[in-house]
Amino acid sequence: MTRQPRLEIEYCTQCRWLMRAAWTAQELLTTFPQELGEVALMPATGGVFDIRLDGETLWSRKAEGGFAEIPLLKQLVRDRIAPGRKLGHSDRKDPAPEQPTD
Amino acid sequence: MTRQPRLEIEYCTQCRWLMRAAWTAQELLTTFPQELGEVALMPATGGVFDIRLDGETLWSRKAEGGFAEIPLLKQLVRDRIAPGRKLGHSDRKDPAPEQPTD
Repeated sequence: MTRQPRLEIEYCTQCRWLMRAAWTAQELLTTFPQELGEVALMPATGGVFDIRLDGETLWSRKAEGGFAEIPLLKQLVRDRIAPGRKLGHSDRKDPAPEQPTD
Repeated sequence: MTRQPRLEIEYCTQCRWLMRAAWTAQELLTTFPQELGEVALMPATGGVFDIRLDGETLWSRKAEGGFAEIPLLKQLVRDRIAPGRKLGHSDRKDPAPEQPTD
């Protein structure tokens, strides 16, 4: 009964990152309520904080350190499931290199 | 990459039940961090607020009205994935009829 697009937030319970994971889920579901099929909160251990969309890793604490900024996550999700969407103040200030400039 | 036991919380976005759904998810993940494989928040419409565990409906607003009490949900989940667990003050005050009395 899984629905796609499926966003996974895997978090370390030992690090007490449930609230952070749930907050991240709410931010993304607030922005993409019609585009996201589901957001899965997945308890794990060992310092994990990973965010995946349909199997693609969007962000991993082990690789990138610290925590993902919510506006960045929204951009990464938007680019994949709602490319035409404007994100208001969450949108990137500097256009990505591959985008045409005005 | 779905993990079981999988708890689904399907909620109506038109009713603005995201926060309620996320709160419910956090309550259950706080109580069952090692027992639950994942909790999926699933945006829907039409007044839905349904809670399922591995496909079994534990609670449905359409059928039962109002909202599920968190202690009741914890009991329903506990009975299925961690039957030996005590839930402290969330535990049922009256033993279920099928349980032996002291």
